[in-house]
Amino acid sequence: MSYFDAASAAPLHPVARQALLASLDEGWADPSRLYREGRRARMLLDAAREATAEAVGCRPDELVFTPSGTRAVHTGVAGALAGRRRIGNHLIVSSVEHSSVLHSADMFEAGGGSVTQVPVLRTGAVTVESYEEALRPDTALACLQSANHEVGTEQPVAAVAEACRAAGVPLLVDAAQSLGWGPVEGGWSVLTGSAHKWGGPSGVGVLVVRKGVRFAAQGPVDERESGRAAGFENLPAIVAAAASLRAVRAEAAQEAERLRELTERIRARVPQLVPDVEVVGDPDRRLPGIVTFSCLYVDGEALLHALDQEGFSVSSGSSCTSSTLTPSHVLRAMGVLTEGNVRVSLPAGVAEEDVERFLSVLPRTVAGVREKLGAPAPTTVVRAEELVVDALGKRCPIPVIELAKVIGDVPVGGTVRVLSDDEAARLDIPAWCEMREQEYVGEEPADRGSAYVVRRLS
Amino acid sequence: MSYFDAASAAPLHPVARQALLASLDEGWADPSRLYREGRRARMLLDAAREATAEAVGCRPDELVFTPSGTRAVHTGVAGALAGRRRIGNHLIVSSVEHSSVLHSADMFEAGGGSVTQVPVLRTGAVTVESYEEALRPDTALACLQSANHEVGTEQPVAAVAEACRAAGVPLLVDAAQSLGWGPVEGGWSVLTGSAHKWGGPSGVGVLVVRKGVRFAAQGPVDERESGRAAGFENLPAIVAAAASLRAVRAEAAQEAERLRELTERIRARVPQLVPDVEVVGDPDRRLPGIVTFSCLYVDGEALLHALDQEGFSVSSGSSCTSSTLTPSHVLRAMGVLTEGNVRVSLPAGVAEEDVERFLSVLPRTVAGVREKLGAPAPTTVVRAEELVVDALGKRCPIPVIELAKVIGDVPVGGTVRVLSDDEAARLDIPAWCEMREQEYVGEEPADRGSAYVVRRLS
Repeated sequence: MSYFDAASAAPLHPVARQALLASLDEGWADPSRLYREGRRARMLLDAAREATAEAVGCRPDELVFTPSGTRAVHTGVAGALAGRRRIGNHLIVSSVEHSSVLHSADMFEAGGGSVTQVPVLRTGAVTVESYEEALRPDTALACLQSANHEVGTEQPVAAVAEACRAAGVPLLVDAAQSLGWGPVEGGWSVLTGSAHKWGGPSGVGVLVVRKGVRFAAQGPVDERESGRAAGFENLPAIVAAAASLRAVRAEAAQEAERLRELTERIRARVPQLVPDVEVVGDPDRRLPGIVTFSCLYVDGEALLHALDQEGFSVSSGSSCTSSTLTPSHVLRAMGVLTEGNVRVSLPAGVAEEDVERFLSVLPRTVAGVREKLGAPAPTTVVRAEELVVDALGKRCPIPVIELAKVIGDVPVGGTVRVLSDDEAARLDIPAWCEMREQEYVGEEPADRGSAYVVRRLS
Repeated sequence: MSYFDAASAAPLHPVARQALLASLDEGWADPSRLYREGRRARMLLDAAREATAEAVGCRPDELVFTPSGTRAVHTGVAGALAGRRRIGNHLIVSSVEHSSVLHSADMFEAGGGSVTQVPVLRTGAVTVESYEEALRPDTALACLQSANHEVGTEQPVAAVAEACRAAGVPLLVDAAQSLGWGPVEGGWSVLTGSAHKWGGPSGVGVLVVRKGVRFAAQGPVDERESGRAAGFENLPAIVAAAASLRAVRAEAAQEAERLRELTERIRARVPQLVPDVEVVGDPDRRLPGIVTFSCLYVDGEALLHALDQEGFSVSSGSSCTSSTLTPSHVLRAMGVLTEGNVRVSLPAGVAEEDVERFLSVLPRTVAGVREKLGAPAPTTVVRAEELVVDALGKRCPIPVIELAKVIGDVPVGGTVRVLSDDEAARLDIPAWCEMREQEYVGEEPADRGSAYVVRRLS
């Protein structure tokens, strides 16, 4: 079995496992107590905080441990916004943030706040200029991830932090995907992370608030973790998280180089091995272990199952693999193909032969899924210069498959109208046109769903 | 070393440790993923939920895992209040709830809600009548612990639940202290618990919301745990928590009997062995492992340190052992002595000889602390019938020590005025009078602090 979904969760690092076992014996007591077991727990907690702060690049008293990366984001965003309530009620986020940031923004908006979503380039990166444009006198907080969790693209955090600093606005950086690789550069104000992304146990996040940043923790008062993370400290897991961060950092430079070579191999060879594939994300400014691509005419869920049967665990941003039946907001914001989407995120220590086996298995797996889906013939011919494809009630990737089947049946200059009520078609038909160098004329309202009009150029 | 603070945290149960180790290997992946590791994690999570629900006495889909007992309470109180916002804005809590409940109530009050704190008897128990009196047409929620964490007194939960049901008000039960001993009886609506109180790991709480109870989770949207506990599930710890709960329940009946005998021994013998001691809490309706007493003329922190040096880890509700320098709100609400307070909470499996050794060590330990504190002479004699003791600037237990030293110096019928600016004196001087059968005349304002007037009766 090859586990290629390290961006979701990584197996426990051996060092973390050792630390966890040791601190189960030494660190179960309440660190606020005065007796022996309590003092021992306090020492372990202090040491874990110091080690983690050193790895993050902050003072120990700026860092608290939260129950997860998501809770760190929720607390960080809410606390920073509340701390600057008197300055204003405006929040800036990128359109490709983790759902924990976007849901925090939704809640802020529902409570009367105003939110600007900064768009991204087709690579998934924001530009500094777009943050500069979004900054307003009433901006209370800006958020930007260090690197994207779905496509691996690194964001220009240091430059955006500088723009925010110039405007007197704190920047919160969700560093969940990058903290295992190194500290976040630049003058950020608030930072969040998640231990189980760096080989630590689940149940531990970190929230760093720089001295001098106005911060008002929300929720009921609680004395633990400087009042910023209520509840009994999850101590053995915190100790394991700190140990793991040190361990992965010690190996980071070497392992980054190795994984970068492996993901580069996937980036280069997948388009050679599999027809009609779009590799997405920035080819250079990216995390070492993540590579994402989308396959035309493929159902993401079917592909995941087929790869699982071949022994590969990957994730997907396709609409059919989400409970909401909408494609990943990241791929949508980038404007790239969402159907047949596969994210490969390699865990540290992955074997080269597993990657090679993946590359050898992928072509026939994709071909098998495509074959099973087949492609029904167009149902109605209106006139020679225009074909209408009725794909109503059919879900991704069927509308694009039907479009592709008939585009050769109209003369160059003729059009195909695809009728579809599937949300993904709105993204994937233009993306197909871009890949196939056909003209996407536009979307028109229809009795049910929409009509997507494509002109044959070649 | 004898650890007698199980009500704070219990060492990991051997069964929990085994389950944790096994699930570190099997349960680190994201249970929402479709591939092998994800499905395995999902199965472990489902099994843990079923086992825990069975032990709690609820349906699996009524129970979610939270990052701690405190978070379960915060989420439970906020969600239940928000779910009934249209019914009213009134919350009932007992005055001896855990701080997580009281702080939730504070936040609700700060946001415009109205809170009734139900008083307790000198045993620490509420009465059903006092809850009936507190219930109003606009009551959104009532909260009552199953048993008190500081004195072990069990609350009449089933009867209060019945009163709430009759009024159409949901009852939230904080069952943190009792869940390891058995399910909570009666028709409660919401229930919370904490795994590290029953020998499970830290990092796991439970929140149960009965079907049909209106509940609106607060905070940013998150799809995990039915939207009631944001963030990646702390799966290995959840599995260990469930295993531990099953294990301690299997041993509960027998162990309860054994611990009850040991705490009964402490309750009976401490007053014989140590002069001027008040054992607090209900002598019968109480948890098996908790016994709490207060020693006159003793500094709680000094006693804790002295016991720690003798190898005993206990906690205290005395003012000098808290960071806020105020005595435990529980002891205060009960109206009992707060100085020299010791809570012994025996862990399951405690050895009888450790308890015997505690009883043999306690008398000389208390005597040693009392001797070190000494007792300064009264500083001012005003007239024969009244002595004034100036204890300004002196902290618990000095004001009571000075009072006791001079009460014999006034004739029967004469009075002693104790000048004190220590918060604990307001509680401990009346408590001393009750123990010593002297008349507590009352408190009078003074230039600094207050004057506490005591009349000698015998």
